[in-house]
Amino acid sequence: MAEAITSRAQDYSQWYLDVIKFAKLADYSPVRGCMIIRPNGYALWENMQRALDDMFKATGHQNAYFPLFIPQSFLAKEAAHVDGFAKECAVVTHSRLKLDPVHGLIADPDSKLEENLIVRPTSETIIWDTYSRWIQSWRDLPILMNQWANVVRWEMRTRLFLRTMEFLWQEGHTAHATEQEAVEETLTILDIYAKFAEEYMAVPVIKGIKTASERFAGAVETYCIEAMMQDGKALQAGTSHFLGQNFAKAFECKFQNKNNELEYVWATSWGVSTRLIGALIMVHSDDKGLIMPPKLAPTQVALVPIYRSDEDRVKVLETAEGIKKELLAAGVRIIVDDRDGFRPGWKFNEYEVQGVPVRLALGPRDVENGTVEVARRDNGTKDSVSQTGLAAYILNTLDDVQKGLFDRALKSREDLTTTVDSYEEFQSVLDSKGGFIRMHWDGSEETENKIKEETKATIRCIPLEGYEEAGTDPITGMPSKGYVYFARSY
Amino acid sequence: MAEAITSRAQDYSQWYLDVIKFAKLADYSPVRGCMIIRPNGYALWENMQRALDDMFKATGHQNAYFPLFIPQSFLAKEAAHVDGFAKECAVVTHSRLKLDPVHGLIADPDSKLEENLIVRPTSETIIWDTYSRWIQSWRDLPILMNQWANVVRWEMRTRLFLRTMEFLWQEGHTAHATEQEAVEETLTILDIYAKFAEEYMAVPVIKGIKTASERFAGAVETYCIEAMMQDGKALQAGTSHFLGQNFAKAFECKFQNKNNELEYVWATSWGVSTRLIGALIMVHSDDKGLIMPPKLAPTQVALVPIYRSDEDRVKVLETAEGIKKELLAAGVRIIVDDRDGFRPGWKFNEYEVQGVPVRLALGPRDVENGTVEVARRDNGTKDSVSQTGLAAYILNTLDDVQKGLFDRALKSREDLTTTVDSYEEFQSVLDSKGGFIRMHWDGSEETENKIKEETKATIRCIPLEGYEEAGTDPITGMPSKGYVYFARSY
Repeated sequence: MAEAITSRAQDYSQWYLDVIKFAKLADYSPVRGCMIIRPNGYALWENMQRALDDMFKATGHQNAYFPLFIPQSFLAKEAAHVDGFAKECAVVTHSRLKLDPVHGLIADPDSKLEENLIVRPTSETIIWDTYSRWIQSWRDLPILMNQWANVVRWEMRTRLFLRTMEFLWQEGHTAHATEQEAVEETLTILDIYAKFAEEYMAVPVIKGIKTASERFAGAVETYCIEAMMQDGKALQAGTSHFLGQNFAKAFECKFQNKNNELEYVWATSWGVSTRLIGALIMVHSDDKGLIMPPKLAPTQVALVPIYRSDEDRVKVLETAEGIKKELLAAGVRIIVDDRDGFRPGWKFNEYEVQGVPVRLALGPRDVENGTVEVARRDNGTKDSVSQTGLAAYILNTLDDVQKGLFDRALKSREDLTTTVDSYEEFQSVLDSKGGFIRMHWDGSEETENKIKEETKATIRCIPLEGYEEAGTDPITGMPSKGYVYFARSY
Repeated sequence: MAEAITSRAQDYSQWYLDVIKFAKLADYSPVRGCMIIRPNGYALWENMQRALDDMFKATGHQNAYFPLFIPQSFLAKEAAHVDGFAKECAVVTHSRLKLDPVHGLIADPDSKLEENLIVRPTSETIIWDTYSRWIQSWRDLPILMNQWANVVRWEMRTRLFLRTMEFLWQEGHTAHATEQEAVEETLTILDIYAKFAEEYMAVPVIKGIKTASERFAGAVETYCIEAMMQDGKALQAGTSHFLGQNFAKAFECKFQNKNNELEYVWATSWGVSTRLIGALIMVHSDDKGLIMPPKLAPTQVALVPIYRSDEDRVKVLETAEGIKKELLAAGVRIIVDDRDGFRPGWKFNEYEVQGVPVRLALGPRDVENGTVEVARRDNGTKDSVSQTGLAAYILNTLDDVQKGLFDRALKSREDLTTTVDSYEEFQSVLDSKGGFIRMHWDGSEETENKIKEETKATIRCIPLEGYEEAGTDPITGMPSKGYVYFARSY
């Protein structure tokens, strides 16, 4: 490989883009702000989808699919919602192209739509319009629905995976008979997101509540999980919204309760997106390239056979196939890279850059000795290991890597979390090491805005756990109910 | 259920829509021509995706994701392609809405795009633009890529699943160093499609080649699988295109071959869509509702417990849970419907309408006798069966249903296939029973068009098998290489 990955110390932002490029996760597209997700990136997304989808289904959710297009008038029905999305949406105005003798291909004026269509930035409006037709009685509730879909938000500044004009996500939309049930659903999903982030992505997260100014457009309360990147910036990794009756009112969605009274339906919505891939890269990877947690890695083990003579080739590949068979049977996602025309060193480098958790090397001497070299991507260790009992050894190693990545990320986040009791210290920590800064806050939007304007740090969340310690806002001297998490963020 | 499903004899077209409605497969949306795929329909699609995706991956294909939007100028680069799609595409012209004091919400004129964006009707253009950057040498080939995505074609006459403005599909796009390899890929995929249709959907298909006038816009050759519906109309169930070097030339995609010469890359593309769900409904279902083949049925077995007293309830549910556990362990997708407030008869009807292949009923007497009632959806038989060895019995029954549905569909297609040697007979068969009509054709577009205009029947395909018997076109008296398949179609 001619070029090299920029180091994190030199330019963190460029390092991130280099990792994506060298690990072949994504590419730019000719349409500004839209990305091409390459097979390595998409396979990661598929594994994320599978794990999340299983958790959604295990909690009673079903998948469905709603249209890509939303009538413009729908967006306007929920006041906060239209404010949040009208300024960044793709508007379809025509249904046909035609060849104009002067201007070439143009949108055919005769095909102008009676009403513009919006490419969905999120689907609350079209779904609540539908629910208003599906729901009549308490017997029709709850509806626990999710969809895997693409959405479009016309972002001005984009960055691969983290902020793109089109992205892939899942959006859950549930309907309930009571406020309590809807709030419980919101928290059930928040727990699923946190569990997924920590157990699959090996990314520790803070569960919390967004302040009013950071709430989803149309929500009563937005819950979130917040993660910390290696450079000291935070990243919102998932949100779960309690929507109250806002959308039910906007779309006249009422149900007859058990007392035969008409009531508005209670709602939630929640989503995570391909932005999670950005978080995964930024939390674990290093200057050599991507590091993938074993539970999500499309390839967990890559075996590189080493030989010179044809005779050795036969022996080595035969043993390699035996190992592959044994590991596949144990549920390990292993490949044997027997491509000719590529040197072993080149292959080693390829799996390192692409973040495959474990790389095996097998040469003629290994075949004789009944051994194999096991190299770990996370810490670089190499061990010669007996082929006997290899499957158990590898399963154990993968567990160890998974746990090790989480522990390392947790330690990093703890190192990057500082509790301060003065605004001076806040600013000094923010500019020196960044990270999460726990500080008292008086609960006012005014103070929140002042801090944001002066430091570019926002309140990432009011934590669900550890928010008991009352105190004083160091800026205003007003009382505070507890420490909240501030950070600069992606 | 207050309303009933229209019978096929009365109105086949309405019957089809009724089955979709009563089986809760899909719903209309507020955007004309776009459909809402409900959980029952989407779960079917997920099972189709899983089976196809496994077959694609087993033949070396990888999934990726390309942008939803295509620059208008891209569409124009391949002449036949723009002709095929320019007249039916959603055109994005603005990136923002604004509130106008007079007209309300409008597309903000200040946000007009420099170049219109087209919502992809298919992705050849954006993918070949990308491939032209990814491919330099023969070492970069082949590229075997697929994506699962939504596409939009502005159809005027739509029908749920069969023809919708937005639909879900997979589109494969492969790049090869030689013509032969690309043709082989096209046929590999055609075989996968045929295998999927026959072994999973239990729908027999004819593999064939489209005539020039029915080819994909931009293809050199379009291969297809054609299925026959119960009403005697054909349905194109999947297409696999050999694109030659057309798109490589349009996007200047060349590679250095092993002799260090620059050559244009060879291409294929192929797709199946949610239209398959329409085919599945129309081939198997009956006047009582949907019939699903077991291999694709989200629920294969529904157990309805029957009891009156609380004491019986406990006993019956305990036995039911035991049966569920045993069947789940055997890999059967079973649910126990223990919902209160719904009578057993209502539940029986629900599973019948929704096409669940096997329904079990378990009452107190069954618990005593160690039996369970097994009812088959496909033929309506009911048997009292011992609980001992039930898993094996059910697995066998599901196999039998799967095979039975295929055999029935095959017999129906055979009954609906007629070989004729005169145009008079052709017209008479077409108007009396419809179906596939095998007739000699001289190979001219003129004859093809004449038949189409006069009868609305088109050449569905030139069959890959059984096209040896030369003869005479009964209309023109010109020589014909073999019988081709004509039909009216969806």
